[in-house]
This record gives sequence, C-alpha cells and structure tokens, in this order.
Amino acid sequence: MSSIGVVFRVTTFGESHGPAVGVVIDGVPAGIQLNEDYIRRELNRRRFCHIPVLNPRCEDEDFQILSGIKDGLTTGTPIAIVVWNKRAVSNYYMDIWMKPRPGHADLAWYLKFGKLYDFRGGGRASGRETVARIAAGAVAKAILKQTIDVDVSSHLIELGGVSISRDDYTFNDVAKSWEKPLPMIDDEAIEKAIKVLINAATEGDSVGGIGEVLTTEVPPGLGEPVFDKLKADLAKAVMSIPSTTGIEFGLGFKLARMRGSEANDQIVLRNGKPRLETNRVGGMLGGMSIGEPIRFRVAFKPTPSIRRPQRTVDLEKITETTITFTGRYDISTAPKAILAAEAMTAIILVDHAIRAGLIPRIIRK
Amino acid sequence: MSSIGVVFRVTTFGESHGPAVGVVIDGVPAGIQLNEDYIRRELNRRRFCHIPVLNPRCEDEDFQILSGIKDGLTTGTPIAIVVWNKRAVSNYYMDIWMKPRPGHADLAWYLKFGKLYDFRGGGRASGRETVARIAAGAVAKAILKQTIDVDVSSHLIELGGVSISRDDYTFNDVAKSWEKPLPMIDDEAIEKAIKVLINAATEGDSVGGIGEVLTTEVPPGLGEPVFDKLKADLAKAVMSIPSTTGIEFGLGFKLARMRGSEANDQIVLRNGKPRLETNRVGGMLGGMSIGEPIRFRVAFKPTPSIRRPQRTVDLEKITETTITFTGRYDISTAPKAILAAEAMTAIILVDHAIRAGLIPRIIRK
Amino acid sequence: MSSIGVVFRVTTFGESHGPAVGVVIDGVPAGIQLNEDYIRRELNRRRFCHIPVLNPRCEDEDFQILSGIKDGLTTGTPIAIVVWNKRAVSNYYMDIWMKPRPGHADLAWYLKFGKLYDFRGGGRASGRETVARIAAGAVAKAILKQTIDVDVSSHLIELGGVSISRDDYTFNDVAKSWEKPLPMIDDEAIEKAIKVLINAATEGDSVGGIGEVLTTEVPPGLGEPVFDKLKADLAKAVMSIPSTTGIEFGLGFKLARMRGSEANDQIVLRNGKPRLETNRVGGMLGGMSIGEPIRFRVAFKPTPSIRRPQRTVDLEKITETTITFTGRYDISTAPKAILAAEAMTAIILVDHAIRAGLIPRIIRK
Amino acid sequence: MSSIGVVFRVTTFGESHGPAVGVVIDGVPAGIQLNEDYIRRELNRRRFCHIPVLNPRCEDEDFQILSGIKDGLTTGTPIAIVVWNKRAVSNYYMDIWMKPRPGHADLAWYLKFGKLYDFRGGGRASGRETVARIAAGAVAKAILKQTIDVDVSSHLIELGGVSISRDDYTFNDVAKSWEKPLPMIDDEAIEKAIKVLINAATEGDSVGGIGEVLTTEVPPGLGEPVFDKLKADLAKAVMSIPSTTGIEFGLGFKLARMRGSEANDQIVLRNGKPRLETNRVGGMLGGMSIGEPIRFRVAFKPTPSIRRPQRTVDLEKITETTITFTGRYDISTAPKAILAAEAMTAIILVDHAIRAGLIPRIIRK
Repeated sequence: MSSIGVVFRVTTFGESHGPAVGVVIDGVPAGIQLNEDYIRRELNRRRFCHIPVLNPRCEDEDFQILSGIKDGLTTGTPIAIVVWNKRAVSNYYMDIWMKPRPGHADLAWYLKFGKLYDFRGGGRASGRETVARIAAGAVAKAILKQTIDVDVSSHLIELGGVSISRDDYTFNDVAKSWEKPLPMIDDEAIEKAIKVLINAATEGDSVGGIGEVLTTEVPPGLGEPVFDKLKADLAKAVMSIPSTTGIEFGLGFKLARMRGSEANDQIVLRNGKPRLETNRVGGMLGGMSIGEPIRFRVAFKPTPSIRRPQRTVDLEKITETTITFTGRYDISTAPKAILAAEAMTAIILVDHAIRAGLIPRIIRK
Repeated sequence: MSSIGVVFRVTTFGESHGPAVGVVIDGVPAGIQLNEDYIRRELNRRRFCHIPVLNPRCEDEDFQILSGIKDGLTTGTPIAIVVWNKRAVSNYYMDIWMKPRPGHADLAWYLKFGKLYDFRGGGRASGRETVARIAAGAVAKAILKQTIDVDVSSHLIELGGVSISRDDYTFNDVAKSWEKPLPMIDDEAIEKAIKVLINAATEGDSVGGIGEVLTTEVPPGLGEPVFDKLKADLAKAVMSIPSTTGIEFGLGFKLARMRGSEANDQIVLRNGKPRLETNRVGGMLGGMSIGEPIRFRVAFKPTPSIRRPQRTVDLEKITETTITFTGRYDISTAPKAILAAEAMTAIILVDHAIRAGLIPRIIRK
Repeated sequence: MSSIGVVFRVTTFGESHGPAVGVVIDGVPAGIQLNEDYIRRELNRRRFCHIPVLNPRCEDEDFQILSGIKDGLTTGTPIAIVVWNKRAVSNYYMDIWMKPRPGHADLAWYLKFGKLYDFRGGGRASGRETVARIAAGAVAKAILKQTIDVDVSSHLIELGGVSISRDDYTFNDVAKSWEKPLPMIDDEAIEKAIKVLINAATEGDSVGGIGEVLTTEVPPGLGEPVFDKLKADLAKAVMSIPSTTGIEFGLGFKLARMRGSEANDQIVLRNGKPRLETNRVGGMLGGMSIGEPIRFRVAFKPTPSIRRPQRTVDLEKITETTITFTGRYDISTAPKAILAAEAMTAIILVDHAIRAGLIPRIIRK
Repeated sequence: MSSIGVVFRVTTFGESHGPAVGVVIDGVPAGIQLNEDYIRRELNRRRFCHIPVLNPRCEDEDFQILSGIKDGLTTGTPIAIVVWNKRAVSNYYMDIWMKPRPGHADLAWYLKFGKLYDFRGGGRASGRETVARIAAGAVAKAILKQTIDVDVSSHLIELGGVSISRDDYTFNDVAKSWEKPLPMIDDEAIEKAIKVLINAATEGDSVGGIGEVLTTEVPPGLGEPVFDKLKADLAKAVMSIPSTTGIEFGLGFKLARMRGSEANDQIVLRNGKPRLETNRVGGMLGGMSIGEPIRFRVAFKPTPSIRRPQRTVDLEKITETTITFTGRYDISTAPKAILAAEAMTAIILVDHAIRAGLIPRIIRK
C-alpha cells in the first residue's frame, strides 16, 4: 500500500507520466514552522545541476501545499503537497509496451496488474515517486529539528566503485557534502566518480553505489519491541525505495565476522549519561535508540535502464525478444535514492518519537 | 508493538523468565492441516542437541494450542500457542541489576522503561521470544505449503568466520542441512565451525555469523507498492530479530559495485513463462515477487554475553563499573536466529499472499 | 487520523477555507471503469439546487483526478482527487476567533490544538470535508457494482420532525428519491419538510433528521470477527461523519424491547439458498453479511450554526460571552450527511469484500 | 480480525468450547499497579449469582497472567491473560450441526467458513469471548484511573421492557448498581425485571435490553479527526459486541427531532474552564472529548437461543427444517453485554489517551 507510519502517516500517490505526484502527511504536530521555500530547497537537492548525466534538466519543481498550514505554522491537520509533472514525453515508451525491461519493476507490474499497468516512465514504480517522499521527509525533518533537535543527513560513500577515502568524517562534513557537485565528503572521490559516470554514460551503461544515512544524537526510547523496532522500521522504510538491495546498521556485515569481545560497544559515562564508547552497532540496542547517532548504509544497484540491447520476453506474443532503451535515464540512481533514504529515515524517526511520547501534539513557541 | 502483519497477523507475548512465551496467530485460513507433532518438530529445530555450546539442554518444549484448531484443521479463528518457560534460574541476573550488559538490549530497555524493566534473562528482549516466532512460522509454512506450494528454508553460510565453500547448492541441499549438527551445506565447514565455537567458548568469547533464507518459486504478485513491498516487509520482519545487523537481497551489496549491463537479470522464456535467466536480484523486482525463488542474507553479530569483564555504567549510582557475565549463554545466536528469519519470512509471505488474493479464506480439500 | 480502511484505504485532507479538499484512495482493484462525469454526478448530489435554504449556490464542483486512472480504467495504483475550494469569504469568521460556537467542533479543536486551529468555516471539521468522502464513495460504489454487483443508496426517513409515511419501499424507490427535491420517498413528506426548513430558516434556527442507508443483497462473508465485524466498521465509518448522534441496524432499538421469539429472523430457503424470512436484524448476523441487504438508520442532530444569540466562553479572556452567527449555514446537515453515510458504507463494503477475497486485484473484462 | 486499538492494542482468542479464551494486551504503560485479585473481581461482575436464570453457575473463573507484570507493576510489555474454559458439555450441540440457529451468528459462520466452523457453544461468536474483553477492560480501567483519573461504569436502563424510573442519577449511583442483583439504579425496576426474566424463562423465551456506559470527566483532546474520532472508535468497539443493535450518544436519536436552539449545549465557565451547561451531546464535540463525562446508550437484542421451535435450513440437505434449542442459555445477554461495552469503552479511552499524549510510557510513582 501507499501509506507508511503508525501515528505520523505518509501516503504518496502519482505516476511518472500522470498529472502529478503528491503526498498526504497525517499526524503532523501543530505549531511547526513550515514554508514553501524550505520545501523547495529540499526538493532542489534532487536536481544535481552540475552533473548533466545525472539530471539533464535543472529547473525547480512546480508544487503546491493544499492543506494543513496556516500563517506559516502547521495546524495539526493533514498536509497535502502536490508536485506537478512537467515531462510529457511518453512516446518512446511505446516501444517497450508489454516488453518488460530487465532489472526494472515492469515485469512485476505486468504480472500483477497486466495490461492495466501504466508503464510510461515506469509509472508508479518510477524514481519520480520519491519526490513525494522528499517532500514528506522535509516536513519530518522540520518536526525533528523543532521538537527533539535531531538532524538527519546522508551522503554517498561509494559510487560506481569509487569510495571515499576517509571514515573520520563528522555529521557536519556529511551535511555540507550537499553543497558539492556530488554528496561525497571527499573531493578527490567526487572527481573520480564524475569521470566514472561520464564514462558509463558514454558506454550506454549505468553504475550503482552505496550511501549512508546518519543523524545527530537521537534521544533514547524510539522503537517499539518486538516487531516495530526502530531498526526494523528503518529497514522497511529504506528497502521500500526503488533500487535498494541491502541495508546494514553500524558496521553491519563486518560485525558478523567479529568476536563478541571485539564487537560489543563498551558503555561509558559521558556528561553524566550512559553512552557507547564506540558506536559500532549504529546507534540502537534491542532495536531502540539509546542517545547515540543512528547510522546505516544502503546499497543501490545500477540503474536498470541502459542503452544496450537486452533480452526480454514479449508478453503478448510470448516470445523472447530484445529491447534497447533509447529514452533519458539517470546513469546512477544512488544520488537521488540516498536522499529518499534520508527522507524515509526522518519520517520513521518522527513516527517513533511521537509513539514514544517525545513529540507533543502542539509545539508551543 | 508486538504484532506484525496486516491480514495474517502475528502477536507474541512473554518474557524469558516469566511463566510462558506465546503467540496469537490471526487471519489463518480455515482448512489447513495442523497438529502438535508438526509444531513440536519445528520447535525442536532450535535445540541443537549435538552442539552443547549452543544449547546445553536438549529437551522438548512444553507447549499447548489453545484455540483455532478443530479435528486437525484450522477453523479460521485465531490460533493461540503457549510455550511454558521451564528455566527459573534468575539468581545470577541480580548481579546485573541496573548494570546494562554491553551489546545487549538492556541499556535501551532501562532508558525506556527504567527500573520496571524485567531484566532477568533479557526479559522480553531475550532470544527466548523467538520461540513464539518459530511456532507462528510453523503455522505460516503449513499454510504456504498447502495453498501455494511454497517451501521456505534457511542455512548458515558463515559462522565464526568459517564460510561454506560452495555456492551451487539447491533448495533441497539447504533444507536437508537441518539434519546435520549445524545447518550448513558443507560438512567440512561444519567441522571447522564447531571447533571455532568450542574455541570461543573456552575463551569466554562469542562469534557471529551470516545466514541465508531461501524459498522455492514464489508466485508473482506478492508485495504492495510503494511502501508494503515484499522486499520492505521482509527487511522489517527480519531486522526485528535480535542480533541482526544487516540484510541483503540476492547479490546485495555486490550489486552496488556492478554496472547495469552486469547486474540486470535478463528475462527469458522458461516453460512458457517469463523468468530471470539469472536471479541476482533475489527473486523480486519493484519489491514484488515474480515467480522466482526469493533469497536474502542476514548478518548476525556475535552474542553480546561473554565471560570476560566488560565496561558499563551503574545506572543507580551513575558511575562506571565492570561486569562479568557468569550465566549460560549461546556462543553464537546465528543458528537459532536464522530459524527465526525463516519463520518471519514465512509469516510475511502468507500475509502478502492473502493480500494478493492468492490464498483463499477456506482451503477446500 | 485521516485514513480509514485496511486494504482499501481512504485518506482525506483539506480545510473548509484552504485551497482544496481531497482524497487519496489506495487499494483500488485494477480494471474498474471510472471517469470524471461519473464522479461529477455523484458530487452534484450534494447540491440540492431546488432547496435554496440547504445550499444557496448551485454550481458544479471544480475537481481533478491526479493519478490511478489510465484510458478510463483504474490501474491499481492510488487514485488522488482534488476538489478546489472556491468560497473565500472568511471575514465573518473573525468574530468567532477563540469563541467556540455551541454545538460545533470548535471547542474540541481549540482544546486540542489551541490557537493553531484553523477555525475559518469550521476548518477541517467542516461538512466540506465530506466532499472528499463522496468522491471516494463514488469510486467505491463503482467497484461494488462492477465486481460483486452491489448497489448502495440512502434516503431521509425523517427531517425536522417530518417522517415518511410508508415503510414498504423498495431499494429502487430509495435510489430514485434522489431525483426529487429532497431524498425522501414520500412526496407529501417532502412538501412538509421543505416548509419546516423554510420556517426554521426564517426563525434563524435549524433542524435535524434521520436517514437510512440500504443496499441490495450483499454476498455472505463480509466482516472479520471479532473486532472488525462489518457492523462495527460500518458504525465507526458512519459515526465519523459530522453531526451524527446515533446508529441502529435493522429494527435497532426496537429489538431491545422484543422477545427472542418476536425478534429472531427465521431462516428459510429461497432459490436454494438460506435466507432470512424477515430482515429485522439489518442484513448481518454475528456482524457479518449473509446474503441479505444491509440497512441501518442514522440520527443527525440539527446544524449547530443558528442565527440566534448563544452563550459561549471567550477562550482568550476566559470570560463568558454571547455570539450570534451571521454567516451562511445549511438549515439541516441531514441531506448532505446521509450522502456521506452512503459513501462511507460503500467504502467499508469494498474494504471488507477485498478482505473476504470476493474482489480480485484485477477485474478482467 | 481479533485485534483492536492502534497503540494500546487488544487481541483476543479462543472458542466457547475450546481449552481457553484469552487476551494479549499490548502497549500497556509501565508502572501500573495490577494484581490477580483485581482482575478476578472484574471477571466476577459477569457472574450474577443472585439471578439463576442469567447464570446458573456461580463460580470464579480460572485464569492466569502469563506476562507483562513483575512485582505487581506492569513492565511495558504485552500482558497475556488466559481464562480456562471449564464447561465441556458440547453434546447437545450435535443436534444443531449444519442447522444454523435463527438470530445467532451460526449462519454467517457457516457461509464464511463452512463445515470448519466450530459451532459448539457458538464457538468464537459466543458471548464467552467477551470474558477476554472484560479482562482487557480491567487492565484499561486501571490505567485510566492511575494516569488521568477517569472512571468508567455502566448500568441497564431497560431490561425486558422494564425501564428505570429516574434520569437524575450520578456516576456513583451507576457504579454502585453493580452491588445489586441487577445493575440498575432503581430497586423497583430490578424487582420487576427479575420477574420478567423468570417469566420469559418459564415460557422458553428471552428478552433484550438497553444499557448505558458513562464515565467521569474525560480530559479534552481524545479523538483523532476525521476518521478516528473518539465517537467513531467507541461506536466500532461497542458494535463489535455480540447482540448489539444500536448505539446513541447523549440524547442520540432524540437530538434528531430537536431544533438547533434546543439541542446545542451552551458553553459556560465552570472553575475557570469552558464546560457544557448541559451535556445533551454525550461528552464529545467534533468526535473529541472536551472535559465532560462521556455517555452513550446501547441496544441489545434478546438472546437468540430460545426453547421454542424455530425454522431454519439444513445446510447439508438443503431443506427447511425446525430446531428447538435445549441447552443452557442466558435469558438476556444485556447484563453481561453492558459489561463488555464498559470494557470496550475503557480500552478505547486508553488507546486515545496514549495517542493524544496524555498517558506517558512510564508511570512513575
């Protein structure tokens, strides 16, 4: 279904080539400062104006806030945001009618909904839908900042095989990476990665990447055992983003190869509070926040659209065939997808902070 | 919260050192054959009688089915199963009262529920709670088998740093691995892994591992975009299991380093149906099943309990201190935890198969 | 929250004096025929052009379908519908700033959300919100008709104390009542009721009414014991409509005064099927449908807005005061509210029919 | 499904003639004082020892608390309570195999689950299931009392056509009515009602009744517009109880016949707070609590089981037939059912008070 969250509930709608995509955000506390400029800035982070192979166009989104805000403050009622779709070039999609593109969601949609599937531009499975998530994430981040003073950011630690060279970065380093051409903390890696992107584009190919989401210190108590653990809900929210193939918290898979004596984060006193000496576990124990920053990594597979012939099946004729995609595509989805992961993280944190009683219904200024 | 699933809904209850753990399974189709022997066999898979360091005791669980079954068939009403707790040795837990064990959920529970937390044996955060999941998973597996003929199994691909040496195994190889001392398809690896376990036990340490869940072919259409994707719900369900630190579908993180031309599974005709030539993606596209087997890997961190002094904070005195755990512990949680992952997979598959309309309310024989 | 339904899920948004009200309808089966004309006709049933005291304006709603429909068929993705608000006359609401109108939701909203409450035109609590429900109900009714061939309609059985004189009406009588000035099956009652409305308007007062929703035969099996009974979910859905004060199924409160021998509907064979000889119970047993038409009655209190001085409290000055509403108001909410009840009924029936497995994901023509 | 509530979630299980009925109560705040004696007292309110025609047996329920309580305090984890079934007399139910009893849920269950339905004693549809609700309601009432100091009680205002003669009763009058043979505030009415019950029993017939639930002052802010209004959720919860046929809040259906000038509760200052001068509306505006007591009435139809021949259909032979019930039955379900309504009210109030942020996760003594 198209809703996520229990008491802070986000519902998206819209197809890539329909009139609009949009979102209804329910359970918003009253009294949060929000305006269109802020939403626009967050939506603009998806543009990557300096990397044409990532996004050949560089214009603002055309969006409207339809409800839930009065005099610059949330009122406690649902916020609906509509982002109008501008691109109407659906023609070249006729070539792939009933010919599912390898690696894309097409096959799944055809098998589930048949000829009724709106295949143009990937329809509802398009990365375009994540615009609605970014808008909701912007609202969620404003709530987190104004209530429990938590920031969420993200960056890429690997793109097309190019890794950042440092692991001693701070939250601020990460947040500032969004002022660069690519959200990587390492300028040298950015340079290399851009070359890799251009190279892949030239060859009609695509690349994947690995991103990381991290937060400032999250107050303890978020997460509801045993199934609605914060860790579990983050995993679900992030793995609902197109192109994700894995998620690991803290040191993740590396922890599986350690001994307990190496892996356990010792508990120490810091400013009178119990804290982890290290934070190998990624900010949660028992699936709940404990006052530490949360961090996890997400793998994104390469964009399935490539300009090379690929084998598929003609679902009408029931024959094998070959298709070559000729439309526009992002050489890597990772830069936009990590933004969606950041947004989903903020959404889940707000939902859990409300559930834990840390965010009241009315924020009094 | 302690419930998972939308129309097939599993609710667990119980603490490690309370009278019982148990589960209520709601939304069960009527007409499924179920009996106590079958449930017992599934619960017994957690025993590992041949590996004393994994489980020093080797006796049957004492459980009762309280509702939902009549004359060996499910009736369509909730099935409640109670598994009585036998172990009552809570004494040595008094030493850790208000002294959270590093790596355990203790700290999170103390920070959320304070002195009210039932810390004995880990309370609700104990691996003991997964017994209830196994019972529910047994019911779910019976439903899958008797309705859409899907099997679910699991195995370990790595334990304490020892990996299996083959990757050409079949579903049957995996299923049969449970007849061995450890659920690994590779006898040599088992031998090595047991040595590693014994060695770690001798040193008062613990080890982690990586497991894999896989299924036979899952019919297309399971998964509800955009948030309740099958991939997303599996990730949530699995990451709600204690000690999990990461999950990856298909080739997972490796896909992030590939190019699109390498990563994309070509679509071919097999028996008149569109199928993936390879299945690098793990059996889902767009987060939905497509007729392929589903497979994913899960990382489990080493058991946090070790018999070595560790640093922690006395939450009453607000001082740093050291604790050494002297109670019983599993040298690795991985063998039991992968069973829980298998169970959660079956639960999610049933929920989605019902939602997709593939499992009717009444199974007519 | 602003969502209802488990697998067919309706989310509304919007305030009376904001840019728009709207709805996202999730879980729509693919293949349902839907177009704007049909939606418009349903929205127009709220207009009551011939009864100026009910609605001084008589113009079409300005709405857009943003997603979920392609080539006149639903695609299985969420349908978003935006209905733009035209009326912008918010001035006279300044008089009631922080002075909750007796009988209105104002007091509750002020107590919950304080000064952030959008009080203009009742904000989110306005009957205006039900436009979004009517739109969703239109979609639901199309689904019911095209899948399980169920019709839903409604009428008023009492308005301002004027009752219809017959109780031998058919479903068709009821459905056709919407072609009359008021949805009552009895022309004489209509004439009298209009006089009562005009009279009340002249006196600056308002009136209440009782409506009835009924359906054609609903296939057995809708309703999920023990909490999600169809009866229970209908009660919730209907009692969420502004101005409702009671609901009774079948003979309702009269059944409480009967003996079992009088109240029990005898079970007879009709066309080879078990049917109720009478249908005093309103079409459900054990809270589930049984093949009978469903029917229930709803009480609507008089419109709280009246043009007479009423006592209230100035929440800023904390003093008692008097207000006299001078804006436009509906002399009775009952005619529009019973339409909302009809819509909510259709929504709940679709949700339950999908849950019961009676409506597939794809409707194949 | 068998769960109700969003953050305070109650799941019941069990059939009338199975081993047990029971309940899992999730989302319980930590620190609530609870013990077995209190639960037992609440369960005992169902016994009606002094009215043999209501309950021929007068013995304590045999129940166990399996989890969630330690040292007399809730720990914040799910509380599971099992109530063992003692009565095993299922023999006389063989006569009604596949012959649904008029007025009972039998027909609905047969139509939904066929021969798999556990028809003995009504199976899951039996009033026996409400024992689990009473247990959960006891927990809910303890939470309400210990956190927001709200009491909930109930009584009968009409039984078998005998009404109480006063409407000037207080909450205490109502609460104390449970010390009488029947929960009615009027001794004369009790005397008459008992005669009616005995008379109906003699004639092999049954009677219905009307009950009322009321509370002390409920703090403002409970209820989540627009669908999860408190009024709506109460209606659902109450209408999920077997034998209910209607619910009305405050003056209910009478309000539909009033004018606005009569119906509106004027808002006055009392102890510095805005309050309703009257409370005709039943304690909610806009479906939310406003600081007033909540009150509503519920209609219960007569017990469908009667010792007279009734017409039904033999679902195996597909022929009309006649059955005469010879087992034990309650002459009226109303006395037990109003208790269930009281319990459901407490459950819904806790759920909404947590959602509104009025009940914290930990109650510190």
